[in-house]
Amino acid sequence: MMEHAIEYLKNINKAFESRARLGIMSVLMVEEEVDFSFLKETLDLTDGNLSSHLRALEGASYLNVEKQFIGRRPNTRYSATAKGKNDFKSHLDALEKLIRDNKP
Amino acid sequence: MMEHAIEYLKNINKAFESRARLGIMSVLMVEEEVDFSFLKETLDLTDGNLSSHLRALEGASYLNVEKQFIGRRPNTRYSATAKGKNDFKSHLDALEKLIRDNKP
Repeated sequence: MMEHAIEYLKNINKAFESRARLGIMSVLMVEEEVDFSFLKETLDLTDGNLSSHLRALEGASYLNVEKQFIGRRPNTRYSATAKGKNDFKSHLDALEKLIRDNKP
Repeated sequence: MMEHAIEYLKNINKAFESRARLGIMSVLMVEEEVDFSFLKETLDLTDGNLSSHLRALEGASYLNVEKQFIGRRPNTRYSATAKGKNDFKSHLDALEKLIRDNKP
């Protein structure tokens, strides 16, 4: 049984470990595209904290980032890539197996 | 629905975020007490990496650590505290809600 534990732990993805990243990806599994303010309010994160997690996810090719202007104001929009959605699902599957093994 | 997302994200516990810590706590939900070598082999971690995660969990009062000797060899044994088990269950509950919301 412990052997089994090792197996699915390998599918737990470091890129999605933190609460912020779990939150960002969860939002982007439901919403096709959101802007920075929406994520900030929904996840209750500071600008700096949210930015750094978004950059990390973009660096892993999990996010598409589109910079545009609404009038004169910059507005940056985020969506999950197919790879991002796929790898996030694998991560959730691994967590689900871990939870199942920990249920009494 | 996004409002709901924020709520349970708050129960995701930073102390349990990493794969290593999820693994350590999972083992200690099943096994009453284990030694360092058992954790190292089961979780496939280096000495340094495992030590640092064990210290962090001990610092959060999630682990009991008992140093003893088997003959002349030091043998350190680890078990989860009641608080550790309880907080880990809350963490898994929060992850479970996140997974449920991400299922198609």
